[in-house]
Amino acid sequence: MKPPIFKLFYLYFFCMVLPGAGRAWAQADETFIKNIYNEALIHGEAYENLRTLCKDIGARLAGSAEAQMAVDWGYTLLNRYGFDKVYLQEIKVPHWERGTPEAGWIINEQGDVLKLDVLALGGSVATQGLLQGEVLEVYDIEALKQLSAKEVEGKVVFLSKAFDPTLLNTFKAYGACYPIRGNGTSEAGRLGAKAVIIRSLAMPNDDFPHTGTMHYSEDVPKIPGAAISTNNANTLHQWLAKGKVTLKLQMNCQTLEEVVSYNVIAELTGKDDKIISFGGHLDSWDVGEGAHDDGAGIVHAIEAIRILKKLGYKPNHTLRCVLFMNEENGNRGGQAYARIASEKKEEHICAIESDNGGFLPLGFGISASDDQLKAIQSQARQLENFELYYFPKGGGGVDIGPLKNYYPNIVQLGLKVNSQRYFNYHHSHNDVFEEVNKRELELGAAALAGMVYLMDNLLN
Amino acid sequence: MKPPIFKLFYLYFFCMVLPGAGRAWAQADETFIKNIYNEALIHGEAYENLRTLCKDIGARLAGSAEAQMAVDWGYTLLNRYGFDKVYLQEIKVPHWERGTPEAGWIINEQGDVLKLDVLALGGSVATQGLLQGEVLEVYDIEALKQLSAKEVEGKVVFLSKAFDPTLLNTFKAYGACYPIRGNGTSEAGRLGAKAVIIRSLAMPNDDFPHTGTMHYSEDVPKIPGAAISTNNANTLHQWLAKGKVTLKLQMNCQTLEEVVSYNVIAELTGKDDKIISFGGHLDSWDVGEGAHDDGAGIVHAIEAIRILKKLGYKPNHTLRCVLFMNEENGNRGGQAYARIASEKKEEHICAIESDNGGFLPLGFGISASDDQLKAIQSQARQLENFELYYFPKGGGGVDIGPLKNYYPNIVQLGLKVNSQRYFNYHHSHNDVFEEVNKRELELGAAALAGMVYLMDNLLN
Repeated sequence: MKPPIFKLFYLYFFCMVLPGAGRAWAQADETFIKNIYNEALIHGEAYENLRTLCKDIGARLAGSAEAQMAVDWGYTLLNRYGFDKVYLQEIKVPHWERGTPEAGWIINEQGDVLKLDVLALGGSVATQGLLQGEVLEVYDIEALKQLSAKEVEGKVVFLSKAFDPTLLNTFKAYGACYPIRGNGTSEAGRLGAKAVIIRSLAMPNDDFPHTGTMHYSEDVPKIPGAAISTNNANTLHQWLAKGKVTLKLQMNCQTLEEVVSYNVIAELTGKDDKIISFGGHLDSWDVGEGAHDDGAGIVHAIEAIRILKKLGYKPNHTLRCVLFMNEENGNRGGQAYARIASEKKEEHICAIESDNGGFLPLGFGISASDDQLKAIQSQARQLENFELYYFPKGGGGVDIGPLKNYYPNIVQLGLKVNSQRYFNYHHSHNDVFEEVNKRELELGAAALAGMVYLMDNLLN
Repeated sequence: MKPPIFKLFYLYFFCMVLPGAGRAWAQADETFIKNIYNEALIHGEAYENLRTLCKDIGARLAGSAEAQMAVDWGYTLLNRYGFDKVYLQEIKVPHWERGTPEAGWIINEQGDVLKLDVLALGGSVATQGLLQGEVLEVYDIEALKQLSAKEVEGKVVFLSKAFDPTLLNTFKAYGACYPIRGNGTSEAGRLGAKAVIIRSLAMPNDDFPHTGTMHYSEDVPKIPGAAISTNNANTLHQWLAKGKVTLKLQMNCQTLEEVVSYNVIAELTGKDDKIISFGGHLDSWDVGEGAHDDGAGIVHAIEAIRILKKLGYKPNHTLRCVLFMNEENGNRGGQAYARIASEKKEEHICAIESDNGGFLPLGFGISASDDQLKAIQSQARQLENFELYYFPKGGGGVDIGPLKNYYPNIVQLGLKVNSQRYFNYHHSHNDVFEEVNKRELELGAAALAGMVYLMDNLLN
């Protein structure tokens, strides 16, 4: 497999040395991109596709009946649009079920009782009946590691680290809190804790608990892990400042046998065998409707390939829309996609992911060599007329990440959108269709289609 | 009055010729701007101020009791914050009242009846009982001008021009439709029409009618004007394609005697006598809560001056936060502010307005000479770390516009925010506090404070 070679000098020649020719080419590009936007904004189908995915299928955790319905939905829809190829890629996925809704309370020394807004973390074991224990507040994993087993044994560890509101990009705030969800149960289990509850990984103070994946270390007893709403976490913190607090919690979630599932793929065949992939993930957590995470990315990708086909575009490289399965709790879809590509000796030159929600698009993050980065940023200026101004270094997505293992020179991009409200909805009952704005969603689809088009022309 | 002179060469020297010194200065600036953002995001008061303005006062059309309450609210709040000066500027404003809620229906030849979502346009005359007439659909003012009096006489003219969804900046789509609201009644009245109804100036298809100001020509009989929801307009258009449609409409709005009202002003005294003004408008239309239009701009401006004071900033020029009255239906506040400034021989070098809603800030539009524009755009790059990337030529606002008549060299800026959802809310029952996101509002306030700070240091 050859690394992608850029039309860097060619581009430079046309844009900088031959301004007349450069302008002519840029002009043609912009007209095509304008046509993409017009189609998305006048005849767009992204919003109605999202409505169907959210309302007729709903939450769709890998392994669930809804996830299988989502595969069927995607396969049927892509076939209806009549792309050059539509097919499934079989994978095995984890199968975890929440079971009966969780029940949890905190009780202080005065006997005050607060019913918790609580969700088991994805992959957690059950409580085996009503678990009860004294709550020990610990700020984060680093603070937890400072404690002795004697201090933690038999307690319910409450990891209370909050989002840093001064981080303008909320994904950075999320990243800083991620370990309390991902590693809290293992680290607390290692010290003999009974269970872990965490402050939900969310920006606002509200009543929504936010689930998400967690990881058990193999050498440690598995203890239950759950997230409580930020408002609950604030109250618990206040109660603990005044005295002892007891938690009662019941969860009967369980991990079942792995099941067969699928990535869903559609292609527009290119003039050569090289491949540009773009997509989002079809699975979601099992609460809400997975509207922003990542229904939006799914309908962005479907709309992008639909628009390119409708405009009669004949791609230089094969354009492949991928609806990845199991991003949320395993990334089996992304891993299988990359492995199979490599096994088939496909030549992958670029991959683009949309997995930051259906908010106002701002640009794309770009993972590429410095020279490639400059060339892409230069080319991307054609998107400024479409109100896209932000093309920083660094970008991609969980689903397309594994491609990097097999294609070290692949260019990866991630659609950047307004991040301010994402963690109001993420992995919660609140992530529903009604929270997605039609025009913002359509603009995201057009931005993705525009970038696929630019990359198809820039890369060779 | 001298025109503002830029530190252009000074800046150039420091940034381009002496990169070390340039970096040092930029560093100091960015630290201060970071402090502004931290204050807005950790200890921000904009959101709770907006809640009070929306929920404890509500809609506040100039001349209304609520507008007077808003003046009192602003004056009290600015005094509580303890700025160097807080004062009122007396003006006379129009006083129009909607009266009993409008009632309207359309009836087709089959006898189907649809109750309309309808709002009188601001300034409209009443219907004098139940007005009834046959509906004549006309696309826009140009099409209306092609018609003869015979064709229009006695009819209800329905101006049906819709927003162009392909205009990415929704303010452009609004501007293109503005004449049907502003001039429809005069042009239809000139041809003998009974009344005018317009398709609401709004982007989505929904059930909210959107009011707004209109203008009667003096030489033409005054006829009632009203806006119906976009869904109603779609239905009416469909019915008219099949046959005659009758409209029935009752509105008892009226224009009363002008009343006294006020601009509300707070200052941080500068080291010299030059003035930088920034603000939004305190009045709103009389439906909804004026949350985005322009409660957001009001709390942006108050928060900006609060933060600068709290950080102990000693401005070079006097920084003046202005809560303008009567932007919506007369602009008496903006006109008086400029006239009084000129009469007092104040030296105004810059004015900044926030009147595009409390959405994600993207940058500032800039009205200045070409040299000034370049210098400001260069300086504004310091805001890229705060996710502001958009600094196009052209910007300002209705309230600060009249300053240009007296200060032709004044630099004017307008805060640019995500425009995609603005016309879902604008001038409708839908413009309520709940539709404003806390962080997006806070970021807008920080952006405004940051730009006031940059201008205070750049301009002399």
